[in-house]
Formats: sequence, C-alpha cells, structure tokens
Amino acid sequence: MQQVLSFVESNKERYLAQLKELLAIPSVSSQSTHNADTRGCAEWVATEMRAIGMNNVQIFETPGHPIVYSEWMGAPGKPTVLFYGHYDVQPVDPLNLWTSPPFEATIRGDNLYARGSADDKGQIFIHFKSIEAYMKNQGKLPVNIKMLIEGEEEVGSANLDNFVKEHKELLKGDLVLISDSSMFAKGIPSVCYGLRGLAYMEVEVTGPNTDLHSGSFGGSLHNPIQALSEMIASLHDKNGKITVKGFYNDVRPLSNVERAAFKKLPWNDKKYAKGLGLKQLYGEKGFTTLERLWARPTLECNGIWGGYTGEGAKTVLPAKAFAKISMRIVPDQDSTKIARLFENHMKKIAPKTVQVKVTALHGGEPAITPIKSPGVQAAVAALEKGFGKKPLYQREGGSIPIVVQFKKLLGLDTVLLGFGLPDENAHAPNEYINLDNFFGGIRTSVHFYNELPKYWKNK
Amino acid sequence: MQQVLSFVESNKERYLAQLKELLAIPSVSSQSTHNADTRGCAEWVATEMRAIGMNNVQIFETPGHPIVYSEWMGAPGKPTVLFYGHYDVQPVDPLNLWTSPPFEATIRGDNLYARGSADDKGQIFIHFKSIEAYMKNQGKLPVNIKMLIEGEEEVGSANLDNFVKEHKELLKGDLVLISDSSMFAKGIPSVCYGLRGLAYMEVEVTGPNTDLHSGSFGGSLHNPIQALSEMIASLHDKNGKITVKGFYNDVRPLSNVERAAFKKLPWNDKKYAKGLGLKQLYGEKGFTTLERLWARPTLECNGIWGGYTGEGAKTVLPAKAFAKISMRIVPDQDSTKIARLFENHMKKIAPKTVQVKVTALHGGEPAITPIKSPGVQAAVAALEKGFGKKPLYQREGGSIPIVVQFKKLLGLDTVLLGFGLPDENAHAPNEYINLDNFFGGIRTSVHFYNELPKYWKNK
Repeated sequence: MQQVLSFVESNKERYLAQLKELLAIPSVSSQSTHNADTRGCAEWVATEMRAIGMNNVQIFETPGHPIVYSEWMGAPGKPTVLFYGHYDVQPVDPLNLWTSPPFEATIRGDNLYARGSADDKGQIFIHFKSIEAYMKNQGKLPVNIKMLIEGEEEVGSANLDNFVKEHKELLKGDLVLISDSSMFAKGIPSVCYGLRGLAYMEVEVTGPNTDLHSGSFGGSLHNPIQALSEMIASLHDKNGKITVKGFYNDVRPLSNVERAAFKKLPWNDKKYAKGLGLKQLYGEKGFTTLERLWARPTLECNGIWGGYTGEGAKTVLPAKAFAKISMRIVPDQDSTKIARLFENHMKKIAPKTVQVKVTALHGGEPAITPIKSPGVQAAVAALEKGFGKKPLYQREGGSIPIVVQFKKLLGLDTVLLGFGLPDENAHAPNEYINLDNFFGGIRTSVHFYNELPKYWKNK
Repeated sequence: MQQVLSFVESNKERYLAQLKELLAIPSVSSQSTHNADTRGCAEWVATEMRAIGMNNVQIFETPGHPIVYSEWMGAPGKPTVLFYGHYDVQPVDPLNLWTSPPFEATIRGDNLYARGSADDKGQIFIHFKSIEAYMKNQGKLPVNIKMLIEGEEEVGSANLDNFVKEHKELLKGDLVLISDSSMFAKGIPSVCYGLRGLAYMEVEVTGPNTDLHSGSFGGSLHNPIQALSEMIASLHDKNGKITVKGFYNDVRPLSNVERAAFKKLPWNDKKYAKGLGLKQLYGEKGFTTLERLWARPTLECNGIWGGYTGEGAKTVLPAKAFAKISMRIVPDQDSTKIARLFENHMKKIAPKTVQVKVTALHGGEPAITPIKSPGVQAAVAALEKGFGKKPLYQREGGSIPIVVQFKKLLGLDTVLLGFGLPDENAHAPNEYINLDNFFGGIRTSVHFYNELPKYWKNK
C-alpha cells in the first residue's frame, strides 16, 4: 500500500496534465455539433483504460453516444465492483460568465476550473489513477473491477437501461460504486447512503364547461382555481404532515444511529434560511431540517396555472385550473402505490362543485444502502484514510435514477463516494473541482479498493 | 301617439332596408385596415341624425375614432335625455363560423344576422327610428335629447372620458339612456337598474430567493404555491362568505321589493347548472343565485401561476407564485377601500415563511339607479306598452364602466334599456337581433320618450 500511495504522491503533476487533456474535449452530449468530440472522448477513455491496465476494453455503440466498458477480473474470490460514471458534459452557455475558457482547465487558488472537472470527468479520472497506481506498482488490484462509463448522463441516459438489460451477465458484480456527487461541505468528507424517490402527478380541476365572465357569473359557482387552492391547502395539516390517507404507512423510521449521524453534521437552520432569503423555515414538526430533507417524504407543488396570467386585468372565471404536484418518497414507500393513494385522496376531497382528474406523470423509487453494509463501511474507512478525517453520513433529498435502475435490473446496492463540493457549479459557468478533494479522492479510491475485501469477508 | 305608432307599424320594411345599410359598414374599431370604414360609419350616423331631424350634428375628432353628437332641445321644461351608444363593432373572426356574411344582414327565422345587429348598431338605430317617427308626424319630441355615439366602445373607450370632461356643458342633462344590453330572456322584457363594481388585484408570494430543486430542498421550506393556495383557500369560509375583514361593512342590503322582484324572474338553478356542465352550484349561503350574481359582492381568482407549467415533469420548487384576484363590489362599497382592505388582509394572513406583495390593478365603482326613480319607472311603463307585457327588474353582475363615468363626471344616473337577448353572440360569429325585439324596441323607445315627462313631473 505504501508503494501505491507514494506513487500517487509523486505523480500529481502528471495527473493534472492528463486531466487537462481529458477536460479539453468538449464532449457536450446535448449538442450534435459536438458529436465528434463526444465520440473522441469515448475513445480517449478507452485508450486511458488500456493504458492503466484494464482488460476487455470495448466501445459499445448505442442509438446515441457510445458506452465504454472495461474490466479487470484478476482477483478471484474477491468482490467485484461495478464502477459507473459518465464522460459527457453539460453545455457551457452563457460563455461570457466563465472566468477562464470552459475547455481550458485552469487552476486558480485551490481549484481547477473547467467544464466536467467535477461532473464527472474529474471524478472518473480519480479512479483511473488509483487503478493505475495499483497496476504500475503491484500488477494487480485488491478487487475485481468493471467500469461502465456512459456518454449520455447529461441528456437522461436514454440508452443505458437497454444496455444494462442486454448485458446483465457482463455487468454482474457485488456492488455499484459511483463518484458523481458532492461531499457535505469542504473539509467534511461524507458518504451518501440514501436517496429519495418520486411520484410526480398532474391535477386538473374543471368547473364550468367554458371560460366565463367573472362579473356575469361570479358568485354562482365554484371557481376551479379556488377549488384547487382549497384542495392543495388541505394536503398539509398544521403540523406540516401530509394528509393523504395511508401516505406514511410504509415510511421506514429513522434509526437512532441515523438521527445521531445527521446531528454530527455541521448545520445551522438560521444560516440556511438566510442563504435562501427566508425569515422562517417550514416543514413537518418533530424532525430536524436535515431529517426532513433526506429521510422524510414530502409533497411539493411544482407548478400551478389557470385563468389569465398575462399583464394587467382580465375578468375571466376560468373553466379549468391545473397543478403539478410531486411527492418525494423514502424507503419503503413505493411510487406506484403513493401515486394511487394521492389520486384516491384527491378524488375523495374534491368538492361536488368541480371535477378532478389526476394523472401520474413520472415515478421513481427511493434507495438506501444500509450504513452497516460492507460497501458503506469500506467507503467510511477509505475516506478517513484518504482525508485524514472521520467521514460523516448523509442522505440526499433528490433522486439518482441510475441507482434505482442498478438495484432493479442487477440487484445491486450503490455506494456514493462523492468528491465534489456543494458549490461546484456542476451545470453552471465556472465549474471546478477542489484540488485537495481531487488528490484526496485518488487516495480514498486506493484505500476503498483495499478496504472493501476486508469488510466483504465479514459480511 | 297613435299617429306615431302607426307610422312605426307601416315603415317596418324601410327600417330593415336602412338598418341593413348601416350594418353593411365594417366599422371594426380594433383593426386599422377598417379605419376608413369606421369613419364612414360615423358619417353615416351623422347623416342619419340630420335626416331624422336632430340639430347641431357634429363629428368630433379624437386621437382615435370620431364621436358623433347631436341634439334636439325643443322641449323646454321637459327632462333632457343623454342617449349613449356606439357605432363601432367587434372583429368578425373566425369568418368561417358565420352562416351568412357578417356585413350582409340576413334574416333567418325571426332574427336578423349581422355583426353589430345587437351590439350596438341595431339598438342605436331603434332610437333613430322612434325620434324620426315623432319628428315626421308631430314635428317635435316629448323630451329633449342629446345623442352621443362613439366609435371606440369595443376597444375600451379610451378617448371618451376626456371628451366628456371637456364637454360637460354640452352634455348636461337629466339622465343617461343606454340601449346596449340584453333583456332577461326572449319574451321577458326587463329593466336593468344595477351594476357591480370591481377591485382587481394581483398577489405575489415569494418564498426562497431563487427557484430550487424540489428534491434537494423539498421539506425544508414553505412552497410559495402552497402558501398562496392556503391564503386563497382561507378567503371564503364554509358558508361561502368572504373572510376579508370589514369586507361587507358597506354592502347595501337587498330590499324586500328587490328580493321579490328577482323572485318573479323565471330561473331554475338546476337548468343553469346543467348549462354550465356543473353538478352543483356554489356561493354565499342565505342568498339565491340571482341575488348572489347581482347584488352580493364576490371574490374570484381570475388567474394563478407559478413554477413549471409546461408539458411533463420538472422538479422545481419555485421562488414565486402569483394570483390575480378580483372582487365584484355592490353599492355602497368603494373599490379603493375594498382594495385596501384586501391588501391589509392578505398581509395579515401571510405566514412568516413567505413574503406577500399586493398590487391594485384596476378598480371601478358599482352603480344603481333606484327602482322608484322616474327614469326606471318610465322604462317600465314603456316596456309594458312596447311589448304588451309587464317587464321585470334585474341587475347585472358585471360592470359597465361608462355608467360609472357618467355618474362621476356628469352626476347622472343611467337607465339601461336593452333589446338584445342573452344568446345574441355579441362578440362571436352569427350575432343577431331578434326582429320582435327590434320592432318592440322602436315602440318602447317611442313610449319611453312619451312617458318620461309624466314620471319626471312626479319626481
């Protein structure tokens, strides 16, 4: 191990030079003018994989951008890590807000600025370099690794599902590892072990069969905007709890270990509220803000519309009002069941003065990788060694669909080992990766592959 | 009188021929390609006024379309009627939905179809013909008449206010007469003696200082759409009463005479609801539908918007949500006071988790011409004689701004003597005037000018 880590230490300059090469390729997957660049990037990744000692390197064609695969299976009896990442990047507009050109990686202070530096080229490169360090010094890895690097993450991974379905045998492994997220804060390494799911609904409330004049008809019938507002208002009680019947039935309670772990994270409600321009936060009583954000289900209005929304005054009493309402769900809630409960509830509370139609637009399941699982424990040990600091546990309020798909299609839990920072500007101008995190990430990756078999044995 | 009425009876064919001439002029005030037609129509009106014996006929230029004025002041000691109407018409699109060409008046069944037949050329023409009948047979009128026919009613009467302000002496009179509305129903002549006013507001609710990801932030703060919905939901209590503090303080209660008058009108809640596609009506408890529509103030959401309103799902937790909310007000409420009460109320009920901004967009006062006033009583007597049927009393839920302006600028009450029908398609294809109403209208107009001095004397 010492040899491997020394190698990392003495190759920093070379790492940066190579990373700059990768970041120079404008592999913007959403822009067809960059199709050749995106393909070129897939080839760069394949070449790099061969150079660091990966085997069976293949570029798989898809109807969109190619998927790059490789493996090193020389550790029989040891766990197999399926590493997932992406080589495509977001567009760079507005270009004039970049301090240095997005495809000319530039170091300012402790950060390296470039499109893709954090999301996700910099983070896949971290793992290339830890693998290389093992191979160059020991000629082998402590675990088996399969790498799956796609080129369409920033455009919805439209072809990934099919690829996974068609290559279940090839992708067989013991756990998924993804480095495409952020640490809790600078200097605070963390492991993310849970994600929320989603049930996204559209509600249509119909009153009269046509738009009416609010003077000639106002006062005789139930305005659908009013009816919709009344229904929305009733979806939370005064304690901020969601009133949809049966909504909380399948919610896995937070364990004492988790609540204690969240409490260790540096957090200040006042500072958080101030940053958002709010005088007061809001949410379900009996839970801290982080608990509400990560481990409690929520119901949010994502959009509402109806009647006249232009400039000035129009005295219309509209026929219809609409809302988009989504629920973030947590283990062990099920998006299909929650969608059905919501629909039933809305129909039940709808007044007889209007008609209500509810459509499920989109759903995704929550995911959790138990804190005590060998993957998470290996990540914790690796982060402590890589950053010299005990990492904290966190969950994430959003969803990462691919995590759910790996669980569904391959039966694998995912370890999220993020080396970005919350303000890294992943989809905005001046994206960066912090250099301490970059080099700490390589060390952590080295340790992770070394630690995993130990924890796996005790599984 | 018999002579005058016989003249009307024997000139029906000529009336229709002349009306067709007026209706053939495409005086669409909103379309500049019709500017010459609109001016031509003003000239047609002026020529007609001269022909029927009106004096001092003048075409007043305005920054928009001209105003036509004339007078007959040969009845000293008798009341002076200021008759208001408009010679401009709505556009005709979609043309393909017209059964016969909009500017070629065509009789089908009992109706004459053409743009402007009811709104308002047909109705001003009714008064031209009753004046003509008096002048041709008696050489004089029973009252003094001033006629003010504008060409911008369909585009908001932008230049009328200034004209009235600048010609207060010229327009001096005792009451305003307008025939630009509808009877309660076919075969049911009615006098409209009251209009509601308006206080139109915009509400802006701000939560966080930027749009947020509903996964990463949902559960920690008050969604402004939810907050706005909660505020809107609270504006009516379970009896349909408006909860804005002080809102009902200045509402003049319905008199027993009025409630009894409304009850005489043929009305069926079930039929009304069915026509609007509703299973159940809604409104303030303790009042009939017509009372709620005409004589009770209301609060309606005219528009609402916030967050994502496009196709599909976007997981945004928006920074802002907006609503347009208007209140129809009744005598003796005041639009400025109501706007202030609303603003105060919204700020009072706003939760601390959001900020609320309220803007008054538009206001107008309610109007009422007492049932016992000579103008209304003369209209009742005239309708009974003109249609052979006792007319009923009604009010109107909407506002007619010019009525409020005549009261404000000239101190005059208005009598609304409408000969249209509720389904006349005034702003739609296949506008028509019913021929019984047209000829009944001419007889009623003849009687009105004859009856008015009698009631005026007893004032």
